Formats: sequence, structure tokens, C-alpha cells
Amino acid sequence: MAANDKLFIGLDVGGTSVKMGLFTEDGELIGRGSVPTPPLIDSDGYAAVTDGISKVLAASSAEVDAVHGIGLAIPCPVPADGVIRMQANIQINAPGLEAALQRHCPNATVKFENDANAAAMGELWAGAARGRKSCVFVTIGTGVGGGIVVDGHVVSGVAGAGGEIGHLCMNPDEERVCGCGGKGHLEQYASATGIVTSYLEECEKRDREPVALDGPSDSRSVFAAAKDGDEAAWAAIDIMCDYLGRALSMIANVVDPEAFVLGGGTSNSSDLFLERLEASYRRYAIPVTADKPIEIASLNNDAGIYGAAYVALQAAAA
Amino acid sequence: MAANDKLFIGLDVGGTSVKMGLFTEDGELIGRGSVPTPPLIDSDGYAAVTDGISKVLAASSAEVDAVHGIGLAIPCPVPADGVIRMQANIQINAPGLEAALQRHCPNATVKFENDANAAAMGELWAGAARGRKSCVFVTIGTGVGGGIVVDGHVVSGVAGAGGEIGHLCMNPDEERVCGCGGKGHLEQYASATGIVTSYLEECEKRDREPVALDGPSDSRSVFAAAKDGDEAAWAAIDIMCDYLGRALSMIANVVDPEAFVLGGGTSNSSDLFLERLEASYRRYAIPVTADKPIEIASLNNDAGIYGAAYVALQAAAA
Repeated sequence: MAANDKLFIGLDVGGTSVKMGLFTEDGELIGRGSVPTPPLIDSDGYAAVTDGISKVLAASSAEVDAVHGIGLAIPCPVPADGVIRMQANIQINAPGLEAALQRHCPNATVKFENDANAAAMGELWAGAARGRKSCVFVTIGTGVGGGIVVDGHVVSGVAGAGGEIGHLCMNPDEERVCGCGGKGHLEQYASATGIVTSYLEECEKRDREPVALDGPSDSRSVFAAAKDGDEAAWAAIDIMCDYLGRALSMIANVVDPEAFVLGGGTSNSSDLFLERLEASYRRYAIPVTADKPIEIASLNNDAGIYGAAYVALQAAAA
Repeated sequence: MAANDKLFIGLDVGGTSVKMGLFTEDGELIGRGSVPTPPLIDSDGYAAVTDGISKVLAASSAEVDAVHGIGLAIPCPVPADGVIRMQANIQINAPGLEAALQRHCPNATVKFENDANAAAMGELWAGAARGRKSCVFVTIGTGVGGGIVVDGHVVSGVAGAGGEIGHLCMNPDEERVCGCGGKGHLEQYASATGIVTSYLEECEKRDREPVALDGPSDSRSVFAAAKDGDEAAWAAIDIMCDYLGRALSMIANVVDPEAFVLGGGTSNSSDLFLERLEASYRRYAIPVTADKPIEIASLNNDAGIYGAAYVALQAAAA
């Protein structure tokens, strides 16, 4: 790294830790760190983060003045006006944290982004969608999230609801209720939790006992059961693929991206569902979009720090 | 108009006529014209268009050198690579037409855009969405089309399928077939044709005769019957609003625009359906998007020429 290189920091603010990555302009990760997530609402909390940044910079022998952007991936919507209203699992005072980061790194542009949107940008910058100008990132874990990238930029939306694809109302006749209070949302069928719910229902239909499950989101055990030939598990996978494939076909009719990228814990089982998902997508897609690739994310848990740094880089360049 | 003003021409290429508008940079329409649509595949066809342009310029005492952009709204997808593969109701050789326009107006950037996308941009530049940075335009006529605008630019998509919302698969259990070969598409319920189909089905359910209809897309007579208290007509309107409201809620979860704008012939009957549509949208929308405005287009049949000129202006500035 040359002395006058511009550097960018990506922070992935999760419920338990704030992960940190230090990047060059070209998307090379040159340092990383992590601190336990403090309540980000007062000077003690802000200092825990800025101290962590100092350590990452010191370990890479980088100067604080070289930092031209700090991006923060956070688990709540970030509206166009920047005023964060809803908070999920974290306590955060965004203006206070922004001011503290700005004082700590005076040359940096500070930018917040929703975590799924940031992950989408990370995959575009340095992951599975590298070199593309557009993609739709779908993260499948306890819930279903998404990030839409068009023409190299994330579509955050006016209220920060861009890419909130877990709550697409796929089935208005559903009687079960989604975590958000709605009914028939994609997340109810395609998340790890949805797969487990479908599996238990399919076992009940067949009047048999399910395999042992480690909690309501243990889709890994359902996938393992499918591998062992468990019909109810395959039925749950088919439900997931049917809903998710149709949802992707609808998203293709809205933004028509170059590719879909699947991330999140459940994507680790893609060897068991990707072919079925592709077949489902093609069944519902209109002809001009039917050959769109569905790829598996490559940055795993680092997508957030990459993408946060990248949105900061874009904001600094704007 | 000052002598050195930059001018832009919008052409709306329809099945029967090519409508032309001459615009200032600020979106003021200063001249218009129209020629019957020739087969746009040889020098005779191209000359019919360029002669029409000459007349429009002459009538406004404008010089051909002042024309800095020519946009063409065409009724087929325009992919990101500019190579037009599918053609609906027109014969067009896009490279040939582009070269002829370029020769005729040497200072002009020539840009093709899908007609619904162009209409969306027209409403953003000078119509119902004026002053906004994003909107989703929905045109309801014989079919249902759409145009997505994010951050001031149209989302054409890699295959030109951005905004192809008429073919969102809303109801996979539908048995009737859409014009495109799919099943359960939005267009089957929310287009003028869909409204008439639903009305006839609702009459049959009630074992009664429908009102006289002037063809399979005469939704106007269905709206008139509703006004007269026809229950089957209201049932058809409710089906339309239920599907369209849910579709808009899903689009909001993808791109989260500042507003929806409804155009096309059926939007003229919005006094009969807009409140029901808004209620349906709010029923399906997630809380952060539920207060999004649904507005009625204001440029009517001129949206295409405005938007075509605007995309040319953007291309010339890029």
C-alpha cells in the first residue's frame, strides 16, 4: 500500500459484535477486527467502536487521515433522508455515532446502509457478482432479506424498504401469521424458519414423527433429513423452491437484474435445493428473463464489511 | 427560445402513428407533429420520419443543429445492450433508423426506450411525478405495463424487462392463460381486458346477462354499469383492486418508490376505483411503505413523447 492510498472502513453492526474491515479502493481487505456491540447511544459506546478502528489501523500501519470513508451496515431500514426510525436488535443513535466517527476520522465520509443492501454491494464489489452492474441479493437465514443493485448502486428506497423481499405477499389466502404481522409472506415459506414449519406440517400430514430439531430455525437438520430420503423434508424444500422461484421471477419483472445471488446460512445447503429453485424460477419467469443466473454468495459473513466499505467509497466519490 | 438553446425530440412509435414532440431542455413542448407509422425497415420508412421531423422544426423556426437528442419510445423491450430482439406490433430496424436520424440531426444523441418506461420518465419530467426522483408508473389499457424510475433514471433491465409488471405471476393456481402463455398474471385481472373477463364471469355466477359490451376490452362499459349499481361490475372492480393493490405492495418491497402513477385508458375511470385500490394497497403493504401516494398520470397520450425526449436528454448529458 502506497502512503497516499485512500482507505475505506466497513463496519457490520450486528446484535453481538461490530465487525470491522479495512479496505483499499480496489476492494482488497488489508485489516480486520471486531468489538462486542455496545449500546451505540453515548460516548462510551462510540468510543468502543473508534478504539476498535484505531487498533485495526495500527495493525495495518495505516494513518487515520488515509481513511476517506466509513460505511456502517445496520440491521434496520435506512431511508433516503438518512433518519433511522425503526430499530430491530440494536440500540443506535445514528447522528451521535456519525459525529463520533467523523471526529475520529476527519477525512472520512460516513454512510449508513441496511445490512442486506450492504451485503448485496459487497458481493457486487468483490464477491459472486463482481464485475456486474446489477444484481439482486437474497439472504436466507432465520428470515429472508434482500438487496437490489441497479447500475452499480443500491436501491435503498424512499423509506429504506428497497429489497424488503421477505415480506412480499405471495399467498393472500395463508392463515398463518408472519413475524411482521402480515400473512403469506415469502419469509413464511422460504426462510430457515419457514422450511422447518413446512417440514413439521408435512410430517403431520403423513402422521409421522419429525427428525430431532435444534430449534424452530434448524433448517440444517431438515436438509440432512432430505439427504437421507425423508419425503416430508423434500416436500418442505419443494415449497421453499416454489415460493422463492416465483418471487424471483416477479423481482425479475420489476428490475431485471444481471443475476441473483443467494446468501445467508441456508445457502450453504444449496447443493440440495439450487436445481429445484432454478427449475421453479424458469417455470414462472417470462421468456426474456428465464435464463438469468442464480449464483451462490462467496463472501459469506464478510459481505457486510465489504459492502459497507463500498457504499462509503461511493458516497465519498459522489 | 434563444438561438443557442438545446432542443430535444421525442418520438412515440405506435402501431398507427409516430407522434413527435419538440422540447426545450426544461421540458417545455414547443412543437408537435405526427406521421402514419411506415414499416421502419428501409430508407423510405426512415425518410417518412425525418421529413416529419423537418416539418416540426420548420413550424417552430428551429434549426436542425439545435437538436441535441432524439428519443424513441417503442412498444417492445429495449435491452441494456441496445439490440432489440422482440417486436410486438411494429416493423423496425433500429440500427438503420438510428443511422438515418443521426445523419438528419448530426448533433443529436439517439436513444431507444420501451414505451411504458418512456411514459414513466415523461411523468417524472413534466407530469404527475414532476419533482420526484423515483416513481413506478403503471399503465392500464388492453394490457398492463409499467416503468420503474429510480434516482431519476429508468430501470430498463439487462433484457429490457424492467417494469414488465403486467406479467407478475400473482396467482399460480389460475387456470386461464395470459396472452403471453403464462397463468395468473396481473394483466389477467387488472387490465381493461381482465376487468371485462372478470365481469362476464361474475355475471355468469349470478346467472344473469351482462350489459352490452363493445369488445373484449370495453372496461368503460363495466365502469358505467358499476356506476348504475351493477353488482357484478363492482365485483370485477374489486378483483382488479385486490390484485393490483397487492402487486403494488410487492413492487414497493422491491424498489420502494416515492409514488405510484397510474396511466392508460382505464385510469380515466379512477374516480370509481382509486379509493378501493388505495385500501387494497394499504392492506398488503408493510408499515413503512403503507402511506405511499398513488397518483393519476397527467400527460395522457403525450407521456411517450415527453419521456422519449427526456431519456435522449439524459443520454446526451451522460
